Parts: sequence; C-alpha cells; structure tokens
Amino acid sequence: MKLLEDRILSDGKIGEGDVLKVDSFINHMVDVEFVNKLGQELYRLFKDCDVNKILTIEASGIGIACITAQYFHVPVVFAKKTKTNNIYADVYTSRVESYTHQKTYDIVVSKEFLGKNDRVLIIDDFLAKGSALYALIELIGQAHAETVGAGIVIEKAYQPGGDLIRNKMGVRVESLARIKSMSAEKGIEFCR
Amino acid sequence: MKLLEDRILSDGKIGEGDVLKVDSFINHMVDVEFVNKLGQELYRLFKDCDVNKILTIEASGIGIACITAQYFHVPVVFAKKTKTNNIYADVYTSRVESYTHQKTYDIVVSKEFLGKNDRVLIIDDFLAKGSALYALIELIGQAHAETVGAGIVIEKAYQPGGDLIRNKMGVRVESLARIKSMSAEKGIEFCR
Repeated sequence: MKLLEDRILSDGKIGEGDVLKVDSFINHMVDVEFVNKLGQELYRLFKDCDVNKILTIEASGIGIACITAQYFHVPVVFAKKTKTNNIYADVYTSRVESYTHQKTYDIVVSKEFLGKNDRVLIIDDFLAKGSALYALIELIGQAHAETVGAGIVIEKAYQPGGDLIRNKMGVRVESLARIKSMSAEKGIEFCR
Repeated sequence: MKLLEDRILSDGKIGEGDVLKVDSFINHMVDVEFVNKLGQELYRLFKDCDVNKILTIEASGIGIACITAQYFHVPVVFAKKTKTNNIYADVYTSRVESYTHQKTYDIVVSKEFLGKNDRVLIIDDFLAKGSALYALIELIGQAHAETVGAGIVIEKAYQPGGDLIRNKMGVRVESLARIKSMSAEKGIEFCR
C-alpha cells in the first residue's frame, strides 16, 4: 500500500536491534484518519470472507482493530497479556515469545467471546517472527473457531514469521507494507 | 446517557471487590458500533473546546479514544504503562496507583507527542479513585499543555476520584454514566 510505504519512509525511524519505530502515527501517537485508510484497505482485502469477529492483542493493535471493525460491522476482541502462569477455566490461553522485548508472556481470551461459530480476522500492527500471530491463531483453534486470515500493517518480510504462518499453517496473511530489508545505513526497501 | 446506562444494566456484571465488568462491550470485547455512539456523545460535549489531541492510557482506553478521535479529527496519544522506575530524558512520567489491580506503575508519554500548544481531551473507560486520571493530568502539566477536560465512560460516583478532579484540580469531567451505588444484592443505581 503506497500510502503506508510513503508514510513509513517519511516518519518511521530505524532504531537499534532491528526496531522500526512508527510511534508518531501508529504505535504511541495514532493518526486516526490515516489508520482509517488502512482499515478501509483491510476491509477491501477481506470483505468477502464473512468475518464476524476481529481479534487483536493489546495494546497497540486495539486502535487499528477498532477502526477497521467499523467497516466490517463486527465486534473486536482483544487478547490480554498476562504474566501469571495460571490456567483459568474460563479463558483460552497461549504463549507469546516477544523478541522485541525479550520476554515471554501468556495471552488470554475469555471463552465467552470466542466460539465455534466465529469467523475471525486477526488484525495486528507488526509481523516479524510471528510469535504473537501464531499464539492468536492457536487461541482461535482452542475455541474451534475459524481463522479467516490475518491483516497486518507492517511485515518484516526478511523475518520468518510471515512465510511460516502462510505456508506451514495455511493461513492467509495480508500485510499492507512488506519490508524486504532495513538498516540505518541503507534505509528501508519494500517488497514489490 | 441512557443508552449506556441501559447497556450496563443488561450486560454489566458486578464482580467481587467493587468491580463492574463491562467485558462484553467495552473492556475485552468491544462493541464498536456502540462505542461509536459514546464517541459521538463525547464529541457533542467537548466539540467547542478546540481540542487538538486526545490522550488516553493503554490498554482499554485506546479503542474508545480512537473511535472518538474520528469525530474531532485529531490524533490520539496513549500513555504507556511501564514497571521500570527509570526516568528517561525523552518522556514525561507519572505514577498510577491501581486499586483494582493493587499495584503501582508508571505511565510515560514521549515528549515528541505532547507540547505546550496542545489542548488535550483525556478519554478513559473508568473513573473511580481517580489515580489514572490524576496521572494523565500531571503528564499534560509536565508538557505545559492544557487539559481541556476528561471524557469518561463510567464513573463510580460514590468513589472520591470524580469530585477530587473536578473540585480540587478544577478540571471539567464529563462521565457518560455515573454510578451512585452498586452491589450484587441491590444492583446498580445511577446518579440523576
């Protein structure tokens, strides 16, 4: 999506440790009108998939998911992060290994809000190694619901997550911007 | 706001420890079309205040803030929770004592995203003792920005936070539903 690529080039910042900061329009400050256009594009991509629920993960996915959900006219469920290892009877649980923050945490979704009749579109801001996305797909599986696909804002296509989820898990993943390579010296190159 | 009060009565659940669970439409699953109506009402209340930024706190405030921001045509900044005590040079920091979760944490906003020309509307889902709201107002003060007011979805009016912020801090607080009393036995009564 050219609009997004242009914005990443103008306002994204490459930080240490393979970090792409999009704090000024997605991740800390949210340019809501811009995100609305991302939501429209995600709707265009998945509008024929009978989506009846959008699933995301707190915190930075929530804004994008809620804005996108307006086009689908469906509710958003956000998985909550938890540090406890307790398995509660009333929640689905799965584990995320965050490479960015170098820690492991569990995510939970209440069983009330995900069930076998759901056709779920996952929305998230980033896809790199795929740990968060994998965990969300696992939660949907626990609920015997259907993962219709995943709509990602920015995919680091040089990392294995996207291919893993597409090929090994057979889930449709659409990323609005796919980064082919990124470095402070050479800048950002997108997949074409 | 009658629409909200009715929804709280039909779908809210009173939990142990003075907890009102609105998980099924605000806090875990988000009924986006419903939240849109809350956003419209918040816009009606604050539309003449020259708001140029909306501030909220992760995670559950983000959806409401983003949807509301669409009416104001302004960006959302969400304060991030952090457990570290580090004071970074490039962020504003303030402390929240969460009674619900019985812990203390810091919230931070990057100095890039809040400054002296900002007229800030705070949006949050709950107001009880007022610790989170107080901390957000403090952040805005650190940035020498102006707190235009606070738009709250549900205020526990029997707790001291609302009056404290209104009277002692002189900040306009508008709550879409104000709970006068709440108990498992007697149910929920709203302020009229």
